[in-house]
Amino acid sequence: MIYKNFITFEGGEGSGKSTQIKLLKKKLSLYGDVILTREPGGSKGAEDIRKLLVKGDPKKWSGLTEVLLNYAARNDHIENIILHNLKKKHFVISDRYSDSTIIYQGYGRGVNIRLINRLDKLITNNLKPFITILLDIKPEVGIKRSLTRKNTELRYEQMPLKYHKKINSSFLKMAKKNKNRFLIVDANLSRN
Amino acid sequence: MIYKNFITFEGGEGSGKSTQIKLLKKKLSLYGDVILTREPGGSKGAEDIRKLLVKGDPKKWSGLTEVLLNYAARNDHIENIILHNLKKKHFVISDRYSDSTIIYQGYGRGVNIRLINRLDKLITNNLKPFITILLDIKPEVGIKRSLTRKNTELRYEQMPLKYHKKINSSFLKMAKKNKNRFLIVDANLSRN
Repeated sequence: MIYKNFITFEGGEGSGKSTQIKLLKKKLSLYGDVILTREPGGSKGAEDIRKLLVKGDPKKWSGLTEVLLNYAARNDHIENIILHNLKKKHFVISDRYSDSTIIYQGYGRGVNIRLINRLDKLITNNLKPFITILLDIKPEVGIKRSLTRKNTELRYEQMPLKYHKKINSSFLKMAKKNKNRFLIVDANLSRN
Repeated sequence: MIYKNFITFEGGEGSGKSTQIKLLKKKLSLYGDVILTREPGGSKGAEDIRKLLVKGDPKKWSGLTEVLLNYAARNDHIENIILHNLKKKHFVISDRYSDSTIIYQGYGRGVNIRLINRLDKLITNNLKPFITILLDIKPEVGIKRSLTRKNTELRYEQMPLKYHKKINSSFLKMAKKNKNRFLIVDANLSRN
């Protein structure tokens, strides 16, 4: 199911998604209500699951356990925030969604991508964003930015640079394969 | 995959599983090492996921989110505790396993049972217990027992009696359909 009012942002750590999302919200507000949300998290229960994923030892979960925690959170998020806002014709802009699971756990940690896609179909009922904006950032730049923020959610930042390079190149590959849905934005320059 | 050294206990709240498990451990110890474990939980990460499931408002998760949290925990448990102990030929006795998800979330909360079975196959790689001992308890008796224990994990106990009656009758139905694997034990009498 594709709702034209569902927009997602994707990209590596420190790619400036939240800044860009706020700018887009300002523009879209001229046309209707805009709900900003994020994954993992976005709903009360999913935010509790988020803590398990983004804090603590980078090695604490296997890739497949991370996939399942992400889909538990995503299901709660869809049920409690995303779906009814889309049905009310509000714009829903989410900082990350299913693409992040395919990239971070599939390409990044070697979880079978067909398994993730099957799970995605079972759980999201094929709910896909209409537009996805990929912020393309060099991992060296992004991680540095992310570490200078006041940030206690550093589990992914602590993963090796090699992992983040794989994330970045896989996002670009995915975006180039799905040109109808993706917009690629160069996020290496600073805002000012 | 069936390991003959994998044994599970199932049953409603307060059915006395932990007492029976300790008695069985004593007997099996004559034949080899015995690992006692439980679900949701059993491994360090899975115990963190357990807290989300067994504490708090009974309405905080939908049935499908509960299924996904259970499989995230189960996957961590299989990877870190169950599988390597089975391979070392230790007995592994688990207080609950996949049957509980089919009963509590499938029959109890109306989650599509085919979906749970498909997920089970994807995640457990068809790892099934060789013997399952069902402790058959009247919900009125079991809940009362459970509430008189020092117990802070009361999310399921707070669900309506009707729910627990459904759990009990569904467990019995499942056991009667799978007589090769199940042993039914009357758990209504007190130990002494």
